[in-house]
Amino acid sequence: MTLHFADRLCAAVAQKGSPVVVGLDPRLDALPEPVLAAARRAVATPLAAAAEALWQFNRAIIDAVHDLVPAVKPQLAFYERYGLAGLEAFVRTVRYARQAGLLVIADAKRNDIGTTAEAYADAFLGEAAVLGGVCPSDFAADALTVNPYLGSEGVLPFVRRAQHYGKGVFVLVRTSNPSAAELQDLPVDGCPLYEHVGRLVAAWGEALRGACGYSLVGAVVGATYPRQAARLRELMPHTLFLLPGYGAQGATAADVVACFDARGQGALVNAARSLLFAYRAAPYAQRYGAAAYAQAARAATQRMIDDLQRALAAAGKG
Amino acid sequence: MTLHFADRLCAAVAQKGSPVVVGLDPRLDALPEPVLAAARRAVATPLAAAAEALWQFNRAIIDAVHDLVPAVKPQLAFYERYGLAGLEAFVRTVRYARQAGLLVIADAKRNDIGTTAEAYADAFLGEAAVLGGVCPSDFAADALTVNPYLGSEGVLPFVRRAQHYGKGVFVLVRTSNPSAAELQDLPVDGCPLYEHVGRLVAAWGEALRGACGYSLVGAVVGATYPRQAARLRELMPHTLFLLPGYGAQGATAADVVACFDARGQGALVNAARSLLFAYRAAPYAQRYGAAAYAQAARAATQRMIDDLQRALAAAGKG
Repeated sequence: MTLHFADRLCAAVAQKGSPVVVGLDPRLDALPEPVLAAARRAVATPLAAAAEALWQFNRAIIDAVHDLVPAVKPQLAFYERYGLAGLEAFVRTVRYARQAGLLVIADAKRNDIGTTAEAYADAFLGEAAVLGGVCPSDFAADALTVNPYLGSEGVLPFVRRAQHYGKGVFVLVRTSNPSAAELQDLPVDGCPLYEHVGRLVAAWGEALRGACGYSLVGAVVGATYPRQAARLRELMPHTLFLLPGYGAQGATAADVVACFDARGQGALVNAARSLLFAYRAAPYAQRYGAAAYAQAARAATQRMIDDLQRALAAAGKG
Repeated sequence: MTLHFADRLCAAVAQKGSPVVVGLDPRLDALPEPVLAAARRAVATPLAAAAEALWQFNRAIIDAVHDLVPAVKPQLAFYERYGLAGLEAFVRTVRYARQAGLLVIADAKRNDIGTTAEAYADAFLGEAAVLGGVCPSDFAADALTVNPYLGSEGVLPFVRRAQHYGKGVFVLVRTSNPSAAELQDLPVDGCPLYEHVGRLVAAWGEALRGACGYSLVGAVVGATYPRQAARLRELMPHTLFLLPGYGAQGATAADVVACFDARGQGALVNAARSLLFAYRAAPYAQRYGAAAYAQAARAATQRMIDDLQRALAAAGKG
């Protein structure tokens, strides 16, 4: 029997005692020199060497954090940049993370309508119908981020596939970047557009709640705009929030507390650069350095968890 | 010297005498039986056989239409569905089409911010920075569709890469599906949201016009909503329109005429199913059948071109 995605996620958050998601956004120019050197030695062509570096880096990060966090979130752009070899690194990363007991949220922000959206959903959430049957998709993760600009016909095909396979969908509602306001904050009937989108997302997911009370249709809500996030939490009480923007983009533990419920559930906080590349920054650079980049990432992840737990406890949550 | 994308496109439209784009959206369950049988014989694993069928089908379609149309538009979802093998079919298709003198518009609707958007742009428009240099991207096409929900920070990284490499960007403004209205038609200061987006897109592209007068920043405007398309044409006089929705989705030649300028330039009309799978439908099914599917696609493409030319001539355009 297929477990409900929100129940799987809430159980993982409870088990790990942490709502932190490690964003697997490997940037070649930020990878530690020992990883790059080993990849150069191992593989002949430049694209394959780049992809090998991504994979080896991700594997070490997963080994270092898998017992601390419930999920990882690879960003597809950083793999597509290196073409077929890059996507092979994505495939290996997803499989390795799932074998390590992590949920994988594919951050691909896919969007299209009807049977085209179904094809994307097959790729990232389900199975591929092939000649004479179905087979598991290379890219199958546990959840996928989705862009809502095309309306319900652009989102519900993903939701239906997610429901069928015990997977989840996170729909962009209010993103973490400043220029998000150019569209998302435009006033519609006296409220910003993102509130309308939030109501749509809540409605799409309302009938699809798990035993934990949350829906398999989640929302991406930028942690960098805490007032907006708190307002969306009021409008969307049964929606899991995926909160990007922590760390390098400036959001802090205090900024995200309002998105959690009294049990310390209901939200995931993502950070990427501030964890992956901690080895380059204070206070980790001196202590760890490039060779111990994975331990630096673990230390930074542990510190983020501690900060969040302190902030949640101070608010009487969890 | 890098030629401006709009100039390349306008020259191709003039040379072929046709603004038709063939959407390369191969759906396995619609492919002709001889193609499927040959792929089954050629390749052992189901995903590889599916991908082989897509590639062989696309190759025959490209051979059949390359002298009639300026561009093809593969939809990424139909390749991602089959994982790494599917994307290899995409790579082969893009290379083959470009070698045949066609412009390739990758319909991927990518969206993200800052350096993440740059990574997507590298993948589809540019080059990949690798260890010790740059190399051509596996997926490099001539243009990419982009979703505007994240605002200028989500679009301008694509535009900058496009400018650098002589490529183009088509930003979703008003899509062709009925539920597009749920977000895109919401009233903002007395006009629908898509008009605001249209003004943004026009502004992003205004300084990036080629000798033909059009910008490398184009717009996706559904042909299924001719009144909205005509209004957007007024608001965006220097923007190339990519018009989906012709044929299977219901739009006709009369619906798109308003999007063209007096020279019969400024717009591309995309059709996929009604051309690719013409062999299954009247009036082509009886005449061609499954074995001659590519000739059926050519006949349907020629008919679409004739219909458009007649409608444009009747309107005194081109």
